[in-house]
Amino acid sequence: MKLMRVGEPGREKPALLDSDGKIRDLSAHVSDVGGEAISPAGLAKIAALDAKSLPELAPGRIGACVAGTGKFICIGLNFSDHAAETGATVPPEPIIFMKATSAIVGPNDNVVIPRGSEKTDWEVELGVVIGKTAKYVTEAEALDYVAGYCVSNDVSERAFQTERSGQWTKGKSCDTFGPIGPWLVTKDEIADPQNLGMWLKVNGQTMQNGSSRTMVYGVAYLVSYLSQFMSLHPGDVISTGTPPGVGMGLKPPRYLKAGDVVELGIEGLGTQKQTFVADR
Amino acid sequence: MKLMRVGEPGREKPALLDSDGKIRDLSAHVSDVGGEAISPAGLAKIAALDAKSLPELAPGRIGACVAGTGKFICIGLNFSDHAAETGATVPPEPIIFMKATSAIVGPNDNVVIPRGSEKTDWEVELGVVIGKTAKYVTEAEALDYVAGYCVSNDVSERAFQTERSGQWTKGKSCDTFGPIGPWLVTKDEIADPQNLGMWLKVNGQTMQNGSSRTMVYGVAYLVSYLSQFMSLHPGDVISTGTPPGVGMGLKPPRYLKAGDVVELGIEGLGTQKQTFVADR
Repeated sequence: MKLMRVGEPGREKPALLDSDGKIRDLSAHVSDVGGEAISPAGLAKIAALDAKSLPELAPGRIGACVAGTGKFICIGLNFSDHAAETGATVPPEPIIFMKATSAIVGPNDNVVIPRGSEKTDWEVELGVVIGKTAKYVTEAEALDYVAGYCVSNDVSERAFQTERSGQWTKGKSCDTFGPIGPWLVTKDEIADPQNLGMWLKVNGQTMQNGSSRTMVYGVAYLVSYLSQFMSLHPGDVISTGTPPGVGMGLKPPRYLKAGDVVELGIEGLGTQKQTFVADR
Repeated sequence: MKLMRVGEPGREKPALLDSDGKIRDLSAHVSDVGGEAISPAGLAKIAALDAKSLPELAPGRIGACVAGTGKFICIGLNFSDHAAETGATVPPEPIIFMKATSAIVGPNDNVVIPRGSEKTDWEVELGVVIGKTAKYVTEAEALDYVAGYCVSNDVSERAFQTERSGQWTKGKSCDTFGPIGPWLVTKDEIADPQNLGMWLKVNGQTMQNGSSRTMVYGVAYLVSYLSQFMSLHPGDVISTGTPPGVGMGLKPPRYLKAGDVVELGIEGLGTQKQTFVADR
């Protein structure tokens, strides 16, 4: 299934995309796309509905594909080629950092370049949405705790991230720096999360063209690994790292300015399109 | 006012401590201690109540002093003496990192030493609770956005934090590593947040005995600084760094083991007491 949230910010309705590409209203059946609704039982209940009998919603703004995200966890340098382009080596264990959940926006919302930013950059990433509380889970069972996948743009301000005193959070957490969606695609639709094409264009020019095949630490490993440190809860999102082609890796580096349009997508998970705008 | 949350985990009632030290039930007036209830208007509404006419609650488990925390932001190396004891220098700008909100527990709850931990450590910190959305605020106006203060123990696993591949989040976010409370003390009760005694004992022995006077970056500066990077929302908590005396700074270092009892407090903000236990 492709679950989504449609409506103005803060007033999104839960919905699903049916096999004809029509948006169907789920609000009579679940309160939102998150929490219990994306648990195994919740997803089974939605799957049992006759999608085409649900009220159709007019296409409009698409919100973030999951509500109530408690943790937005990112994995750093998780593609060997991307590590190389940033001058870093592949880490011996996954690098974990947090993006503020207040950065989360819809997939096609404007992204605001913060005041003082000169190095706002892009990162197409495979997002993993947790559906069931996970603690100390093994790699073999890890995918049982995953509700599904989404496209994530881990927008990053490189000067804030690396030139303004330690710890990357500062350059990752700016408002609007976390577009996720358009859909939470349930895992049954994704035969192999480690074999998905991933791409990103700036103003129509392809900048990233990779595959989740070259991730150093795969989805199951990451879910298991993270769960050794902290409980993962339904609605938590893990953004699993980016393939090569980010702006800071170019020679010379290239960063986003107001008016730039970024489009990105992952095979089977849909596409995003953001206009980058100056802060008011 | 001293606001608090009393009851079993997930079923806490909002309450206040009256001038006789009795716990008074606020649940007829606010849904929880968080969000709108801790906005300037919400706090004014609570302040207008006749506290002693509210139903008395029996003392019982105390929950985290604020609900619905979206961001749990920590400041690193914010006391010059603490920076020195860890072998670091004072950073030219505040170091920001995130603690998972899923780590938040009540002030006297057990703290669980995670599996594989050998370096679980303590950090008494002044917690700042945001009451009004703050973005690009100046230092002069920053305290207008603060609801109040609390005691915070920024429990840390030093090996996870510094020896397991980059970024501190990994050692800061374990379940139960974020006791906050007992009270959210509204800012009108704290004449000067930069002049509060702070202490911590392990098994009765004083380990930290400092003051917020020696913080490098004060509360108003930190709120303003953070708001340049991201919006701060009601219920967000900023843990502002620890004075000297943490376990990793001792020679030889000393870490917590199951059965250890940690007590800590800040002048005017109450005390916490945690028993550290092994993970099941």
